[in-house]
Amino acid sequence: MMSVQIRQLATTTPDFEAEFQRVLHWAAETDHAIETRVAEILADVRARGDAAVLEYTARFDGLNAASVAALELSPAELKAAFEAIPASQREALQAAAQRVRAYHERQLEACGRSWSYRDEDGTLLGQKVTPLDRVGIYVPGGKAAYPSSVLMNAIPAHVAGVSEIIMVVPTPKGEKNLLVLAAAHVAGVSRAFTVGGAQAVAALAYGTATIPKVDKITGPGNAYVASAKKHVFGTVGIDMIAGPSEILVLADGSTPADWVAMDLFSQAEHDELAQSILLCPDAGYIAQVKAAIDRLLPDMPRKDVIRASLEGRGALILTRSMEEACEISNRIAPEHLEVSSQEPSRWEPLLRHAGAIFLGAYTSESLGDYCAGPNHVLPTSGTARFSSPLGVYDFQKRSSLIEVSEQGAQVLGTIAAELAYGEGLQAHARAAEFRLKGGTR
Amino acid sequence: MMSVQIRQLATTTPDFEAEFQRVLHWAAETDHAIETRVAEILADVRARGDAAVLEYTARFDGLNAASVAALELSPAELKAAFEAIPASQREALQAAAQRVRAYHERQLEACGRSWSYRDEDGTLLGQKVTPLDRVGIYVPGGKAAYPSSVLMNAIPAHVAGVSEIIMVVPTPKGEKNLLVLAAAHVAGVSRAFTVGGAQAVAALAYGTATIPKVDKITGPGNAYVASAKKHVFGTVGIDMIAGPSEILVLADGSTPADWVAMDLFSQAEHDELAQSILLCPDAGYIAQVKAAIDRLLPDMPRKDVIRASLEGRGALILTRSMEEACEISNRIAPEHLEVSSQEPSRWEPLLRHAGAIFLGAYTSESLGDYCAGPNHVLPTSGTARFSSPLGVYDFQKRSSLIEVSEQGAQVLGTIAAELAYGEGLQAHARAAEFRLKGGTR
Repeated sequence: MMSVQIRQLATTTPDFEAEFQRVLHWAAETDHAIETRVAEILADVRARGDAAVLEYTARFDGLNAASVAALELSPAELKAAFEAIPASQREALQAAAQRVRAYHERQLEACGRSWSYRDEDGTLLGQKVTPLDRVGIYVPGGKAAYPSSVLMNAIPAHVAGVSEIIMVVPTPKGEKNLLVLAAAHVAGVSRAFTVGGAQAVAALAYGTATIPKVDKITGPGNAYVASAKKHVFGTVGIDMIAGPSEILVLADGSTPADWVAMDLFSQAEHDELAQSILLCPDAGYIAQVKAAIDRLLPDMPRKDVIRASLEGRGALILTRSMEEACEISNRIAPEHLEVSSQEPSRWEPLLRHAGAIFLGAYTSESLGDYCAGPNHVLPTSGTARFSSPLGVYDFQKRSSLIEVSEQGAQVLGTIAAELAYGEGLQAHARAAEFRLKGGTR
Repeated sequence: MMSVQIRQLATTTPDFEAEFQRVLHWAAETDHAIETRVAEILADVRARGDAAVLEYTARFDGLNAASVAALELSPAELKAAFEAIPASQREALQAAAQRVRAYHERQLEACGRSWSYRDEDGTLLGQKVTPLDRVGIYVPGGKAAYPSSVLMNAIPAHVAGVSEIIMVVPTPKGEKNLLVLAAAHVAGVSRAFTVGGAQAVAALAYGTATIPKVDKITGPGNAYVASAKKHVFGTVGIDMIAGPSEILVLADGSTPADWVAMDLFSQAEHDELAQSILLCPDAGYIAQVKAAIDRLLPDMPRKDVIRASLEGRGALILTRSMEEACEISNRIAPEHLEVSSQEPSRWEPLLRHAGAIFLGAYTSESLGDYCAGPNHVLPTSGTARFSSPLGVYDFQKRSSLIEVSEQGAQVLGTIAAELAYGEGLQAHARAAEFRLKGGTR
């Protein structure tokens, strides 16, 4: 088998910056054909509801049904799927769900509670945190059906206190993935429909006679789903627009090279556009990882996808130091960042932007993908610069609370009136002055 | 002066639901002409940078400058503006800033800190919270220039620890609003440019030779700015897409009617599309408020805008009870919700969706708009169902932290491998199995 032609860069070479830009470059260009098509589907579902959903499901998924109601998966069917899978899978699903739940309960404790205080005038100030009423979770089907994504979307919604969780999942030609259905049972999805694509997003955003309108839609999907989510943003909330998945491994050379090679594969096997990058200050170690890649690849069932991903978008980058590797990692702001080092806590404080940080040789990304506890829905394509893992906070919203005391109104009224007159908003000023004992000026 | 023709509804009438839908309906239709124009401007600024920014600023704002650098407001100019305004305004700005800062510091304490824990296997799980590196704040100029918005955007960014805050504000025909400049000085904006519209959003999102690329853009703006923000979402973060401002007053009849009438005016004076609604179970009190509206309106400098807003979008709604009023309020999910009652804490728990809740007769919305402390950038058009006031959390992002112990890897590896094989992702499974002592299956 031919050796893998993965890019090898070194920060010391004069053309590094140009080479690095080529690695970073991902043609996230808007596909206008997709956008136009998605806008049509959204408008059609909004206007014709169930009838349009049925037509698109027949056309795109090859799934003919008499009604959208017939596309609903009953709780009994989800339960039956759970009972039909092997015991080892049932146990793994339950163990993963339990750990994901425990983590998100800690998250709720840490940042999801209402708070308030009173100032010296007795005025109450605070914030009330409440769950969303109803959310939609999109679960990809077909070529890449991920039961783990059902857990990762539904469990934080549950922990937040969302009362209705509506799952949509395409089932091309009616083929249902038992593990996905079983995961929906374990995660406690309220209702589920075998509908996908832009039509599913439209149904959730606008509501149809059968599919209820939700307040927010989360979960990954293909280019049509991503475009539809962006389109309905504002009508409903959305989590994020996911791009291809990425891993960056920051290695000091202390982890077995085979482990690191397999971690790079685990990202590359997702999809040809997935990106796997190694940053390391030790040229000898990079050579070992490269050798491991060539040795391990032939045994991988998804070797063609892995090779295409590594050759198209992968890179092995020799840095001057671990410090420089950390700086480069911050420029990339990767979705998954493994710090494969003997002293991970030395480097962690230097890492400012990443969706999830995996510390130490034992923390393979795949443990986090399934069952460590934290969410696997993470910001991609450098968006970790400004966004966060999916979490309990995505299924809550906040309302400011203000209760001004009579005494507080005397102080605040004077300040507010001054600024309101300055902005030419006299009714604002008068409303403040009405609460002053001295009357208006 | 003619009496104000504001809609009067009662929940007991048979046509209430239809009438109510007409009140709720806001034609948030996408304006395709604006969208197309904005897409062109964004593409042009992305391609030509400073040159395009200069041209659009000359064309749309009537402001000709030799270079974008000439459009930058120096720290000295911001300070000079602060020194040029009357002492009463200086003091009001500083007092408001101090209160807004104190509130957002509490918010940081309540929900903005990193956290972690170890499970029984010694595996560390947590989340690291870090500030964004650089943010852009959009401040409207021209017809509605709000210095208070400078404070409300810049202060939470500061409290979050953002190191660079870039402000953009249009100055049509070069007219600068001293109070806006002074507020930028007080709030500690890092750099400021007199650029506005879609071209300003584009410059912040893509960066130009002069205006630095930011990680997130916050702040309200007109339809062009809103469309541009939606467009660049994903390249950078954005806060929300703001619609017309709204107030809903829930009254039990105990607040002086003049106060409530003025509170309704304070929303209506913003803009003809602003919405003011009163919900009350007491018909006699509604009549008093209506009389106060007619009596107070002629004295208001912005009476024409107020009348147009009240007649076009306002409503006085008679309900069967306060409980029913709370239910209707939840359906509206208003931006500003005043609970003008003697027992506000009785009703507050029933209110699930609102940007900010103002409790009791002394808490006029205008006190919250300027200086109570909480943010005045709030979700509009019913988006309080799923989104929150602007806050410290908008200027932070989170990274999951996972450090699996050797012992933890034995437990997690088995679960992860089982699920990964179930998903057909063999490299994920192998990466987990490499960490098992027994080797791969």
